[in-house]
Amino acid sequence: MRPVRLALVPGEPAGVGPELCVRLAQQPRDHALTVFADARTLQAAAQVLQQPLQLLPFDRSRPAAADAPGTLSLVEIPLPAPPSFGTPDPRNAAAVVRALHAAAAGCLGGTFDGLVTGPVHKAAINEGGIAYTGTTELLARQAGCDVVMMLANDIVRVALVTTHLPLRAVADAITPQALADTLRITHAALCRDFGLADPVIAVLGLNPHAGEAGHLGREELDVIEPALDRLRAQGMRLVGPLPADTAFLPGKLRDFDAVVAMYHDQGLPVLKYSGFEQAVNLTLGLPYPRVAVDHGTALDLAGSGRADPSSLFAAARTCAAIARLRQSV
Amino acid sequence: MRPVRLALVPGEPAGVGPELCVRLAQQPRDHALTVFADARTLQAAAQVLQQPLQLLPFDRSRPAAADAPGTLSLVEIPLPAPPSFGTPDPRNAAAVVRALHAAAAGCLGGTFDGLVTGPVHKAAINEGGIAYTGTTELLARQAGCDVVMMLANDIVRVALVTTHLPLRAVADAITPQALADTLRITHAALCRDFGLADPVIAVLGLNPHAGEAGHLGREELDVIEPALDRLRAQGMRLVGPLPADTAFLPGKLRDFDAVVAMYHDQGLPVLKYSGFEQAVNLTLGLPYPRVAVDHGTALDLAGSGRADPSSLFAAARTCAAIARLRQSV
Repeated sequence: MRPVRLALVPGEPAGVGPELCVRLAQQPRDHALTVFADARTLQAAAQVLQQPLQLLPFDRSRPAAADAPGTLSLVEIPLPAPPSFGTPDPRNAAAVVRALHAAAAGCLGGTFDGLVTGPVHKAAINEGGIAYTGTTELLARQAGCDVVMMLANDIVRVALVTTHLPLRAVADAITPQALADTLRITHAALCRDFGLADPVIAVLGLNPHAGEAGHLGREELDVIEPALDRLRAQGMRLVGPLPADTAFLPGKLRDFDAVVAMYHDQGLPVLKYSGFEQAVNLTLGLPYPRVAVDHGTALDLAGSGRADPSSLFAAARTCAAIARLRQSV
Repeated sequence: MRPVRLALVPGEPAGVGPELCVRLAQQPRDHALTVFADARTLQAAAQVLQQPLQLLPFDRSRPAAADAPGTLSLVEIPLPAPPSFGTPDPRNAAAVVRALHAAAAGCLGGTFDGLVTGPVHKAAINEGGIAYTGTTELLARQAGCDVVMMLANDIVRVALVTTHLPLRAVADAITPQALADTLRITHAALCRDFGLADPVIAVLGLNPHAGEAGHLGREELDVIEPALDRLRAQGMRLVGPLPADTAFLPGKLRDFDAVVAMYHDQGLPVLKYSGFEQAVNLTLGLPYPRVAVDHGTALDLAGSGRADPSSLFAAARTCAAIARLRQSV
């Protein structure tokens, strides 16, 4: 079996992404790693870290091989404005998005087996005149498919039915279709990408105490339970709807392969509390595995060399493991 | 200084409350403890546990003294139907509520210095023909004051602006008045009951990422920030509005004396994950301290002797500590 090939995109060039990529480059690896970025920016980050960095132009005709630590193969995406660490420049917005599109296109075309991404600065992209709500959404649009955002660490995997939606709009977004899509995509990913034969998924309620038999809201009775029953009839093992405050008790989490939360702030606090540094952000439902860091651009740390690379390391490790699993099927 | 006197109410007689009270009675204590309950039910629980239990009629003319382990002073509230562990009987609903009212009246009148309560079964009370949404609400109505529900363990204290409200109704309930009431009551309790001179309170946003500067909802800009600014001008140290998913990171929690969450499932998952057994439920704003267990009636465990008494022990310890602090002022 050939080594898997991963595409790596640092994200915002003025944030910690470039230095995290340089630190990732130093790690021993069993996969090929190609970065889509501006060479000067990466070398500036290497200088900050005082770490070696050899950039080799990517050559698709060469057989994939795990490169030596300290090297990365490179698809150059030049930046029009040399970045200054800590201060995003809207003139670079188009190049940041181009790097994401190019790397994702390489995954869609089969040149790469997975995509690993650093943190993007939402406001800087929008100020650059490009409508951008998030990398997950951008990749879904490019690939033309429905996706699910899953955050995962060693303790728990959390998938979300709704993501970056005002709280006021959440209840109406919990539809039978949204639940079925989220659960089907999550279930398929647990089987295909995590190698689980018959995963157990916990599904949270929308209301406190999961509605307490209708006393605290009717969405569980009217929408969620019927949707779960239909999916159970198709063979899925679903537990719930469960009250969110007790579903994450450590003794219960052990019984679940994933937790599906109805909205952002219901699902993510325990995940981040229980292991922020090791957490990664997966996009389920794409034709290729995509794993991102679970943190922002940390502009205050950019250029200091003090940013914790654990999440990017975990993202690359997770993406390579999924890519290998898909390769072996 | 005389020992503080606590009133203890087991809650649902068919649940684990009676046996938890018997286990609490075995603990050495530096306060007087009077239980408002049915004597036969307590003795039945003592028999299950094979633990001694001496019940001494409460005598208000006797000076308060810390009783010996294995004894409790008793205000008898007889049950019309002898309870069967595991099966709540609606015929006992009125007596369960009477015990709460009587114990709370003793606190309001100054006979007792604090109230400790076990778990009540909401449905059983309602089936008994008594409209009951929760003990917190019942005690607030009896005392005629605004209260705040706070859950606390050794890791974090979480106060809620809204409690048992359908998610759909939460956004409209986040008003300037609700925020000001919650924060004033929480701040006063941190000073008076926890002995903090100048507490720091973290306030969460309503929307994911605390609205991300209005991109994901406007309540932070239009309601929460102005309310916090008014309270800051009165001298409160308030941090926020903060994104809920990262506010609970262990490194951040250390800087906060309490976290005020906008709603139930935003605030409670991390609290319960980080220490469910030791967690207690405080009612802030009453004229007396009230501390309850942080768990339900556990009907499946009732009568087995296997229920974990940690939360009731913590509740009694916390209530006694607050009562002593108030006594010393």
